[in-house]
Amino acid sequence: MNKYFIELGDEGVVKYKTIEKHIKKLIDSNKIKDGEKLPSIRKLAEFLKVNNITIINTYKKLQSEGYAFQKMGSGTYAKRREINRNFRKEYSNVLKKISSNGCNEYLDFTGEMPNGDFFPVRSFKNVIDEVLERDGARALIYQEILGYSGLRESISSVFWNDRIDSDDILIVSGAQQGIDIISKAIINTNDSVVIEKPTYSGALSVFKWRRADIIDIPMDKDGIDIDRFEKILKKSNIKCYYTMSYFQNPTGISCSYEKKMKILNLAEIYDFYIIEDDYLSELIYDRNIKYNSYKSMDTNDRVIYIKSFSKIFLPGIRLGYLIPPKRFRESIQNCKVNTDIATSSLMQRALDLYIRKGFWREYINKLNFVYAKRYEYTKKCLFKYLKDKVVFEDPGGGLHFYIEILKSMPVDSIAIFKYAMKKNVLITPGTLFYKDPLKGSKYFRLSFSQVEEKDIDRGINIVADIVDYFG
Amino acid sequence: MNKYFIELGDEGVVKYKTIEKHIKKLIDSNKIKDGEKLPSIRKLAEFLKVNNITIINTYKKLQSEGYAFQKMGSGTYAKRREINRNFRKEYSNVLKKISSNGCNEYLDFTGEMPNGDFFPVRSFKNVIDEVLERDGARALIYQEILGYSGLRESISSVFWNDRIDSDDILIVSGAQQGIDIISKAIINTNDSVVIEKPTYSGALSVFKWRRADIIDIPMDKDGIDIDRFEKILKKSNIKCYYTMSYFQNPTGISCSYEKKMKILNLAEIYDFYIIEDDYLSELIYDRNIKYNSYKSMDTNDRVIYIKSFSKIFLPGIRLGYLIPPKRFRESIQNCKVNTDIATSSLMQRALDLYIRKGFWREYINKLNFVYAKRYEYTKKCLFKYLKDKVVFEDPGGGLHFYIEILKSMPVDSIAIFKYAMKKNVLITPGTLFYKDPLKGSKYFRLSFSQVEEKDIDRGINIVADIVDYFG
Repeated sequence: MNKYFIELGDEGVVKYKTIEKHIKKLIDSNKIKDGEKLPSIRKLAEFLKVNNITIINTYKKLQSEGYAFQKMGSGTYAKRREINRNFRKEYSNVLKKISSNGCNEYLDFTGEMPNGDFFPVRSFKNVIDEVLERDGARALIYQEILGYSGLRESISSVFWNDRIDSDDILIVSGAQQGIDIISKAIINTNDSVVIEKPTYSGALSVFKWRRADIIDIPMDKDGIDIDRFEKILKKSNIKCYYTMSYFQNPTGISCSYEKKMKILNLAEIYDFYIIEDDYLSELIYDRNIKYNSYKSMDTNDRVIYIKSFSKIFLPGIRLGYLIPPKRFRESIQNCKVNTDIATSSLMQRALDLYIRKGFWREYINKLNFVYAKRYEYTKKCLFKYLKDKVVFEDPGGGLHFYIEILKSMPVDSIAIFKYAMKKNVLITPGTLFYKDPLKGSKYFRLSFSQVEEKDIDRGINIVADIVDYFG
Repeated sequence: MNKYFIELGDEGVVKYKTIEKHIKKLIDSNKIKDGEKLPSIRKLAEFLKVNNITIINTYKKLQSEGYAFQKMGSGTYAKRREINRNFRKEYSNVLKKISSNGCNEYLDFTGEMPNGDFFPVRSFKNVIDEVLERDGARALIYQEILGYSGLRESISSVFWNDRIDSDDILIVSGAQQGIDIISKAIINTNDSVVIEKPTYSGALSVFKWRRADIIDIPMDKDGIDIDRFEKILKKSNIKCYYTMSYFQNPTGISCSYEKKMKILNLAEIYDFYIIEDDYLSELIYDRNIKYNSYKSMDTNDRVIYIKSFSKIFLPGIRLGYLIPPKRFRESIQNCKVNTDIATSSLMQRALDLYIRKGFWREYINKLNFVYAKRYEYTKKCLFKYLKDKVVFEDPGGGLHFYIEILKSMPVDSIAIFKYAMKKNVLITPGTLFYKDPLKGSKYFRLSFSQVEEKDIDRGINIVADIVDYFG
């Protein structure tokens, strides 16, 4: 044990604060393992040539911060701070702070949505005004359950070339509500749900709430591990499979056409449904990537399609839509009513007009231009500062990179998160995306949508310094 | 059985349509009971002096419409059309039609919200414009989980005289979402929930979804039957009690101050929570009614308060708020995130400005003026056309009357609904408001908010004609 303290002992007079910081770092980097005994007070005091009381105080401080615990009559032991509970709280507190302050303090690499600077505030204001002039009070009463018919028609014609009937579309208040409603409508207690490992934490939470039996299957580079999937299908009844088919959150992986065909086929054979959360497919930078949603390939009505307008457009208007298979249409509608009756009629009408006027296409083109550049720049900075320390794949689109810290680097993503936050840089640790959070401890997600180029360089540099600090 | 057909037989030549209509009326009014055998084809044809084929066709038609079923080799039997399933579908289809057509065709006595004619479209448009000018993109990003701080401060100061801290308020997308979120946060499978008999169907559905054990307790004239309530508390663990404290939906009853005090006391003794859905307390016409919410009387943090801005203000903006007890604050926030992440930031900011500018008070005063008059007028028409056929209480506020059809009248509310709909008049049958729908068959709700005075007279006259037709 004392080997860890050699560098401290070498420095001569050691300060209380230095010892504390040093031990925290050892625990955060997992060099001192969870449950490992710390040196006895007397021995460490002797070794560092400090007073016993200094070590006693250090150990007390560590205990109070959850880094250590005492066994009566036996000594003090290291404690890996509980990853999930404490961390999630800390994380969500920071995000709350950001959302109320408007991101000024932090370099925020957590946000998965377009930056406010690009929002079409002016043109959106104009369509709202035009809608209120045109529709008056009708824009402010309850909307029909399916959603405003004009918007459904726009979606049908602009996004689906009329291949989906507007009456097969259900407007919802964002993708998260879509997942919640679908779960209520089709998942019962103990039904089995297949998710990808890792996956979007918001979906994971909903399935947990429904008390589903959650089976997570690792990702290959072209989508979920299909052999593993088929093995599970052979022995268990699966109700549904939740997937983000393009630029999966967090891995950035897009499922190949071939794999999608195979999975659609499996869905028919083994009688399960595919919940396709199509959240970012508008942002394709790599021209080799072709867009084919499960829904567009679905000949057996096996796909429940979810589209969010928050991720790609205006998060604050809370709009999205579902295309459920016919057999679930009624139950999903009932769940929508019981969840919040209807989605804001004014926002639906405004979005409809926005699409009809062609503003939507313009906006998406602009985003693609800006973010493709920023994507390349982020990649450049990752190579510049983190080469030989991390690995990552090229998603070829979307708003983030998913980064694996090499095993040889003795730091995990919770530690990076904590140390980076002190320097006003925010990243998302991989632990959020796994059923078993520990599985994500060597990964983090870096989203570039909220950070300008000059700050991307600075932010990644700071992250690299932290990795080095533990190295 | 043939006695029911005497009046038909007396008329001489009987037409196919007449026989069909006559039998339907007998079944709808419960004179021919559910499962009762209809006369044999031969006998009825003989009695009515018509061809066998006429009766065969009549019975076929009745079957196809769900009024009868056949037992092989035994004959044809009456079938009371399944109250819940078919009726709910029919009801919701009509409401869908209304919401898309803007209420033109029907005299709509079902709506529980202000009429669009009174909507402050102009001033609301102005506040939206002002918010977008002032806040720009910030009005269109995700709002913090609790909701826009400005709106929470307005609610705290204008509606609660600062007696509730703005950080104790959670903005939601309407009261229905409030009920859904609370249920997710505090009700587990098989937890017991007490509801009033009858109660709001939207709450009933949510509790059913949560698989709660639902206990319904009848209403007295001053609120729930408290003796019955206490008996149940003595023998069962109750998790929560859902109540609308003013102008309860559908009975119109307001809970007395004394009863509220008693129930708050019981909540502390028997450790349960009160979900107070305060949906219409702004509309008090009877000056003897004083406003005291459970929340304002609550000294033990036992009340989860829900306020909707849809019922009283603009349904289409989907806004409301919760005030949960401190111990549930975190779990309720988590449920909000998992349900739809956040409520529309633009709508929150617009409502905030609307309240700050004093428009809210003006609007509520106007509504009170208009609806107090309409309330009195509706009462007058009810006396004019339905005296001696129905009874009802004076709620003294709100937007509807709950009407009991006297036992001596052989018609039920489903029949009134169906026959009135054919004449383009819509009422809400009581069956929607009970755990056991049949309990509501002699009640209907008449909401006057969507119908102008001249049409109120005409509509109630039509309903009275239907009651007479069955008399």
